[in-house]
Amino acid sequence: SGNFFLIAGPCAIEGEDMAFEIARHISEVCDDLHIPFIFKGSYRKANRSRIDSFTGIGDEKALGILQKIGEEFQVPVTTDIHTEAEAAMAAQYVDVLQIPAFLCRQTTLLVAAAETGKAVNIKKGQFLSPEAMKFARDKVIDAGNEQVLLTERGVTFGYQDLVVDFRGIPVMQSLGSPVVLDCTHSLQQPNQSSGVTGGRPALISTIARAGIAAGTDGLFIETHPRPSEAKSDGANMLPMDQLRPLLEKLARIREAIR
Amino acid sequence: SGNFFLIAGPCAIEGEDMAFEIARHISEVCDDLHIPFIFKGSYRKANRSRIDSFTGIGDEKALGILQKIGEEFQVPVTTDIHTEAEAAMAAQYVDVLQIPAFLCRQTTLLVAAAETGKAVNIKKGQFLSPEAMKFARDKVIDAGNEQVLLTERGVTFGYQDLVVDFRGIPVMQSLGSPVVLDCTHSLQQPNQSSGVTGGRPALISTIARAGIAAGTDGLFIETHPRPSEAKSDGANMLPMDQLRPLLEKLARIREAIR
Amino acid sequence: SGNFFLIAGPCAIEGEDMAFEIARHISEVCDDLHIPFIFKGSYRKANRSRIDSFTGIGDEKALGILQKIGEEFQVPVTTDIHTEAEAAMAAQYVDVLQIPAFLCRQTTLLVAAAETGKAVNIKKGQFLSPEAMKFARDKVIDAGNEQVLLTERGVTFGYQDLVVDFRGIPVMQSLGSPVVLDCTHSLQQPNQSSGVTGGRPALISTIARAGIAAGTDGLFIETHPRPSEAKSDGANMLPMDQLRPLLEKLARIREAIR
Amino acid sequence: SGNFFLIAGPCAIEGEDMAFEIARHISEVCDDLHIPFIFKGSYRKANRSRIDSFTGIGDEKALGILQKIGEEFQVPVTTDIHTEAEAAMAAQYVDVLQIPAFLCRQTTLLVAAAETGKAVNIKKGQFLSPEAMKFARDKVIDAGNEQVLLTERGVTFGYQDLVVDFRGIPVMQSLGSPVVLDCTHSLQQPNQSSGVTGGRPALISTIARAGIAAGTDGLFIETHPRPSEAKSDGANMLPMDQLRPLLEKLARIREAIR
Repeated sequence: SGNFFLIAGPCAIEGEDMAFEIARHISEVCDDLHIPFIFKGSYRKANRSRIDSFTGIGDEKALGILQKIGEEFQVPVTTDIHTEAEAAMAAQYVDVLQIPAFLCRQTTLLVAAAETGKAVNIKKGQFLSPEAMKFARDKVIDAGNEQVLLTERGVTFGYQDLVVDFRGIPVMQSLGSPVVLDCTHSLQQPNQSSGVTGGRPALISTIARAGIAAGTDGLFIETHPRPSEAKSDGANMLPMDQLRPLLEKLARIREAIR
Repeated sequence: SGNFFLIAGPCAIEGEDMAFEIARHISEVCDDLHIPFIFKGSYRKANRSRIDSFTGIGDEKALGILQKIGEEFQVPVTTDIHTEAEAAMAAQYVDVLQIPAFLCRQTTLLVAAAETGKAVNIKKGQFLSPEAMKFARDKVIDAGNEQVLLTERGVTFGYQDLVVDFRGIPVMQSLGSPVVLDCTHSLQQPNQSSGVTGGRPALISTIARAGIAAGTDGLFIETHPRPSEAKSDGANMLPMDQLRPLLEKLARIREAIR
Repeated sequence: SGNFFLIAGPCAIEGEDMAFEIARHISEVCDDLHIPFIFKGSYRKANRSRIDSFTGIGDEKALGILQKIGEEFQVPVTTDIHTEAEAAMAAQYVDVLQIPAFLCRQTTLLVAAAETGKAVNIKKGQFLSPEAMKFARDKVIDAGNEQVLLTERGVTFGYQDLVVDFRGIPVMQSLGSPVVLDCTHSLQQPNQSSGVTGGRPALISTIARAGIAAGTDGLFIETHPRPSEAKSDGANMLPMDQLRPLLEKLARIREAIR
Repeated sequence: SGNFFLIAGPCAIEGEDMAFEIARHISEVCDDLHIPFIFKGSYRKANRSRIDSFTGIGDEKALGILQKIGEEFQVPVTTDIHTEAEAAMAAQYVDVLQIPAFLCRQTTLLVAAAETGKAVNIKKGQFLSPEAMKFARDKVIDAGNEQVLLTERGVTFGYQDLVVDFRGIPVMQSLGSPVVLDCTHSLQQPNQSSGVTGGRPALISTIARAGIAAGTDGLFIETHPRPSEAKSDGANMLPMDQLRPLLEKLARIREAIR
């Protein structure tokens, strides 16, 4: 349709009911606005700051929910993986494997993801330049998999802040892969003294609008009907009732830059 | 018209002919697109990296050209000042006094600018947070002048790069003044080994589009019919023939976010 | 002896002869200067920028060399691991398991390392604050292993540079673990256009001296008799003949701050 | 004597009694330890965040006190200047003119300072690389004044923090001028929400020790007998009774690196 695509869902799969509620809502909005939609949910959280953070409801259970959502709503689904073993396992359930930003330099993980034949979405490390994503992308392509997405999610800016460098969008596009802007994690504020990453969700619209105007191919937005009840990353998710008006505005911007 | 406004012109006033050529072109484009236009030109360059850089054609001569452009094209004009004495002098010729980013904390300069009664456009220091511009703005307002503009021009990101933090646009707007995004200097790459600041002018469109989508009130763009011939900052100026298509696209984005 | 300790060796174990040559030399120097010495060598390089970089001579072969060095020179040996499986395997050969900076937030890796009962040296991510290392350290301690070392190796400073924040040394010491300053990787310059990380080895002495004066408990220095012939990280290693005079100076500084 | 030199004093000259009390104490300690001493005090604060901050007791009164201290204790004295007019005025009273970091690129100020014939101490802007100080230094030297000092005072690291890059010490020394490390302002934490710059004075010793070990020629330390009563920058000054034990340790480190 010429529109941008949307990767969206809750941070983590906390249960089937909430996952379906979220998938149904996003799916309807995206259908109405002709926005291709990929459902996202983590089945396990492996790199939380603190060991007592929520880490998941069980791998197979959560992956099964993801698969069921893909079938029910006829959308691709994606999740993030952390080890070679997870690549093979998750690939049985999902369409796109997401490589976490901290792990974007781990060669064996990238190769294992590539070898599943699924699309691979590599998040740009907070320590990496847009140009250097060439080498991460090459690892997947050299393993025989051309389906690569690259995701911007902010770069380290002092200890307790990230900043989105919009110059990176055209730079990464010039590598030859679609570029996604992760509006949720780009607004994180890491290294808070509580051990729980903070965020500025009121600015999701600002970042998303700027991203679409800058020409990004896709957006990543975590959303939840009741963010304050979420077990993971509640501070950063977009309240779900704000999604439709935001996407309407973004679709108009997309139209304006054609 | 509800449109954004544009502060534009050459980096420095190199002579009357070139200044008029540039003003005429921008003026025509902005008239066609209903974009309020403020002509900008520096009459003196005071903070170049190297002492052998071009610094100007003479203060009164350059200021006189600015004034003449204001009268001829019926537009406000602006220039940057560096000392209290310059504030009083320049105020006789121009409508808006621009405070350079390096000088945004100099109290006596801000107060002297405020006391001229002219509008004061404070560029955010590369070392300052958007929130901290409150204190710079207060210095002008406490001196009895409510006409303040705040300009984002990138923040220090390592030694040899700047990054634009688009979160700063709504943050500075919440202080109560219009916010300008300086697309030219935001793309500078300082501290190059040559002593001449570099830049990435191919990305002006990306930054400008993102800025308008993020809701900035105004844009600042330096432009020149033949950038490679410019005596100052040629590496960063937008080739003038690219201005109209860029502004057309930006006006469409502005329309899209209403 | 009240002296600082030294973790040193080549970047990667390229073969038995070179590893023994290096271990012998460092061991002699450290004996003479009463500096406790831990031999370090990577048995596999997992996170190189480019996929065509050197990755190793084979895991078991390289680990066997490490073990043999420990026995021959009666020193503890250490290597870096990247997965839970590697933790268990490497623990059969070495005394200290090093967690790479990019992986310092991976809970299962930290726990797997902890559960081997070996000492765990966690390198601080280029994206992490010294204070936030509390949470990484807690993951090891909560798994029942109190033997934790924390290593500073520079923090992201723009895309193509790292900077060592010496404030982090006392901050991390206050968490209750010995702190190591990695002089080699702190001087890396990442994201170079070649895909090969650069460095500034001429500054190793500056960083090491500052670190000892700031009170670091240990230093990490990669060294090689002929850096230009090294298969990995040659650009950053200290030429081995410079090690003794450097350590002599550092021991004097250590004495001076008692 | 081969020792480092010390630029020290209160942040601002608040009155003759406190200035003399401080000068006398530092002078005695430095005499005992054979540390060349330059007394520093600001006679006016021109770039405070907030307009309601303390700005001084009157220019001539404060400059007169500086001059009197120079005569009484037979030490050079220094102060910071903000305009060309101040350069000429202050040069009648002091031996070293200090250029504030924010103003290190202002050509006319550097030239005016140079032309007084007094030594010029240029603080490195929070936005400048060590290498780029070449161009600031050249402006003074090209104006006929070879007496230049260069001072490191931290570089912008996110909005609310500065970090000292110790690599800059040898880099700036290679330009041919003595290098000073400003331990007080390097530990500032700018852009705090209160509009009053914060700091971490407990880390002054860490930074000073690292600086001496890294080979800096001089240190800059603001000190006050009762920091909490100081009218300016109290949060960052070293309590004066900690100066002697600190300098004793630093002199030992200096001896160790010869």
